[in-house]
Amino acid sequence: MGTRGPGVTLDAFTDRYAQRTHGMTASEIRALFAVASRPEVVSLAGGMPNLSALPLDAVGKLMGELVQTRGTQALQYGSGQGDPQLRELICEVMALEGIVASPEDVVVTVGSQQALDLVTRVFCDPGDVVLAEAPSYVGALGTFSAYQADVVHVAMDEHGLVPEALREAIAAVQASGRRAKFLYTVPNFHNPAGVSMVESRRDEVLEICCSAGLLVLEDNPYGLLGFDAPPTRAIRSRSSGPGQQNDDVLYLGSFSKTFAPGLRVGWVLAPHAVREKLVLAAEAAVLCPPQLNQMVVAEYLATQDWQGQVSAFRGMYRERRDAMLDALRQQMPTGTTWTHPTGGFYVWVTLPGDLDSKVLLPRAVTARVAFVPGTAFFADGSGRSHLRLSYCYPTPERIREGVRRLSVVLEEEVELRQTFGSTGISKPSRPQAESPSPDLA
Amino acid sequence: MGTRGPGVTLDAFTDRYAQRTHGMTASEIRALFAVASRPEVVSLAGGMPNLSALPLDAVGKLMGELVQTRGTQALQYGSGQGDPQLRELICEVMALEGIVASPEDVVVTVGSQQALDLVTRVFCDPGDVVLAEAPSYVGALGTFSAYQADVVHVAMDEHGLVPEALREAIAAVQASGRRAKFLYTVPNFHNPAGVSMVESRRDEVLEICCSAGLLVLEDNPYGLLGFDAPPTRAIRSRSSGPGQQNDDVLYLGSFSKTFAPGLRVGWVLAPHAVREKLVLAAEAAVLCPPQLNQMVVAEYLATQDWQGQVSAFRGMYRERRDAMLDALRQQMPTGTTWTHPTGGFYVWVTLPGDLDSKVLLPRAVTARVAFVPGTAFFADGSGRSHLRLSYCYPTPERIREGVRRLSVVLEEEVELRQTFGSTGISKPSRPQAESPSPDLA
Repeated sequence: MGTRGPGVTLDAFTDRYAQRTHGMTASEIRALFAVASRPEVVSLAGGMPNLSALPLDAVGKLMGELVQTRGTQALQYGSGQGDPQLRELICEVMALEGIVASPEDVVVTVGSQQALDLVTRVFCDPGDVVLAEAPSYVGALGTFSAYQADVVHVAMDEHGLVPEALREAIAAVQASGRRAKFLYTVPNFHNPAGVSMVESRRDEVLEICCSAGLLVLEDNPYGLLGFDAPPTRAIRSRSSGPGQQNDDVLYLGSFSKTFAPGLRVGWVLAPHAVREKLVLAAEAAVLCPPQLNQMVVAEYLATQDWQGQVSAFRGMYRERRDAMLDALRQQMPTGTTWTHPTGGFYVWVTLPGDLDSKVLLPRAVTARVAFVPGTAFFADGSGRSHLRLSYCYPTPERIREGVRRLSVVLEEEVELRQTFGSTGISKPSRPQAESPSPDLA
Repeated sequence: MGTRGPGVTLDAFTDRYAQRTHGMTASEIRALFAVASRPEVVSLAGGMPNLSALPLDAVGKLMGELVQTRGTQALQYGSGQGDPQLRELICEVMALEGIVASPEDVVVTVGSQQALDLVTRVFCDPGDVVLAEAPSYVGALGTFSAYQADVVHVAMDEHGLVPEALREAIAAVQASGRRAKFLYTVPNFHNPAGVSMVESRRDEVLEICCSAGLLVLEDNPYGLLGFDAPPTRAIRSRSSGPGQQNDDVLYLGSFSKTFAPGLRVGWVLAPHAVREKLVLAAEAAVLCPPQLNQMVVAEYLATQDWQGQVSAFRGMYRERRDAMLDALRQQMPTGTTWTHPTGGFYVWVTLPGDLDSKVLLPRAVTARVAFVPGTAFFADGSGRSHLRLSYCYPTPERIREGVRRLSVVLEEEVELRQTFGSTGISKPSRPQAESPSPDLA
């Protein structure tokens, strides 16, 4: 079906798609990432956890025995809400960040990406507003866009989301007659900004949202990956009255960074009534999350020194963060600035002058280094003067080499501009949510 | 949050939900199924495959070795479209039903339920019409309802979907000014009807849909589970011209019934342009399907006698089908009729007189037997004179005992009605899609 001439693909189905589908287009940076996955390119783009430290022998043994002894359960359909034993263990994990919760209010999801999808599905009509940090996680922006929600960005600084900017954004949305449904925030070791919301702002942000009738969607995949201090108490753990934690927060967690992303096991903790809706939505979406994967995670948490393993991950990522910050300090041209993450995977770089990260990307890939342009993390087309560097996956040596290559590209571009003026595309392209390809997780 | 008096649950979030969420309510039969899962109840309700014949030792060994030797790949993020090696093997599986396809046009999904979700997401705006057999798979109805699509049912008989009824339904939808997007059909060993679409009707149905500009969504989880004959050629394999198979068909497959549902590995084969949209939708929904599960399936297909295993499943299900048909013939009260499946999991029963399956269910559960009332399989509230019996999971002895218990309940109800007239609720309740709980898969 469909006639295809050379270089032309006609989509014979265009007039049959749903409205929401017309906004779905592949990101223009995808093709570049296909090139960037070649081994000679140092990728500082991806968010893939470094699994080299995982005890694969022990995990393989655990998995084999699980299937051999409880295979008829592990390979069977499970509950739409998720395995009860795993949900209990998830509550123990959340307790490390001060959360008191019942397994009854936990829904296991296919990675926390599915939790984002289900929450948006349950709350957002087309045209509803979602408040989100500027910048925000590309996968969340993709989901909000898939449900035709409008993202309004709220400024951050080195201490995280700025409360005053949140108040202003809420007022502006109300004044425009639109309806904001929730604030989406990554409070710890932000992806892509590499900053954390300080303790004092957490209560204030929650108070602002509660007063305005907004839910808080607290997305916390990196919370246990802090390099210098024990975990900060979650927004969800804050008090809403004597002896009660706040129920206006939906908390999203994941085993992708503390164990393994290939299992796709995440969760959402939600108020009881919302939890019921999320389970119904999850059943319509996938019937149930894979039972095998849930039992593997439960067995891993119950029988292995998983916190010791997370500690090993922290050490590995700290070493890589140090290598990156060190190299940036030594190599980056004057005028470039960057954040100083104390955990997680990412450094957020601000370019000097009017350099444009989207214009730089193909040159960087040619110089055998890849990053994600800042535009991927904004719903409104901004972000050109920023880029995200990740230090999670390559070795410290490769990180240093990648930053060196990037600095050469930046230096050349700065010189070129000083000589000839701007060479980039100065007009921002049409705002468009990038697709949350797994490369960008 | 929210004040809860005794017996009253206030949902403080009601005014914040999306429109689509107001239609999401837990099925009234769920509570009964919680009771029905007690061991003393013979459940002829569930659609859980019988995994007792699976070679768990071999599968466990394969899985353990996979993680020990290729764990950093198996436990890592994968591609949003799915593992390339698995997609090649999926094409070989589809070839058994005459399909010629490229791995490029296959999208791996989290069970074929996710394929239903993604296809509906890509094609259906609220108010769009989906044509579906009467009755239809409850999980598909749940998904269509989640996207606020309207289902128009099309009659079936013992030879499957009735072409003339399809023509009439299309004309009626057009006359009403609404837009039908696709025909949803389960052509082989239909869930719940237990019938198959005969060869001669497949071309006719496809021709009718093509002429009307409708896609066909061919859902085929049971195609390899025929008891008496080799697989019938898929609708997708039909010709649309010299040397070309028809591209107006989206084909859904699953490993849940030929291998194991707890892995949640299904797929959709789609025309090239549609496939691109499905991948973008999948990435927004879950980033990528679990890589581990895909590699387990690929390894299982490549190294085990999986077709021999499917043959063992067929033998097991045939024996159970025989037990059920035999028991029905011996026990059911006069006037009861049922279908005679030649594969798959289900028998569709039509009750005598004005018996109402929804009224019967609590009595049946009290008598320690469970079934699914026919109403679960209609979007319009009809189906009360039908019920679905599944023979996939219990032993032949338990099946016979379950049918015996059911027949006692039916006999009593028939007598009661002969003595006192109708005792059931004669007014159909408000049409409402049942939720596709995993119990009903």
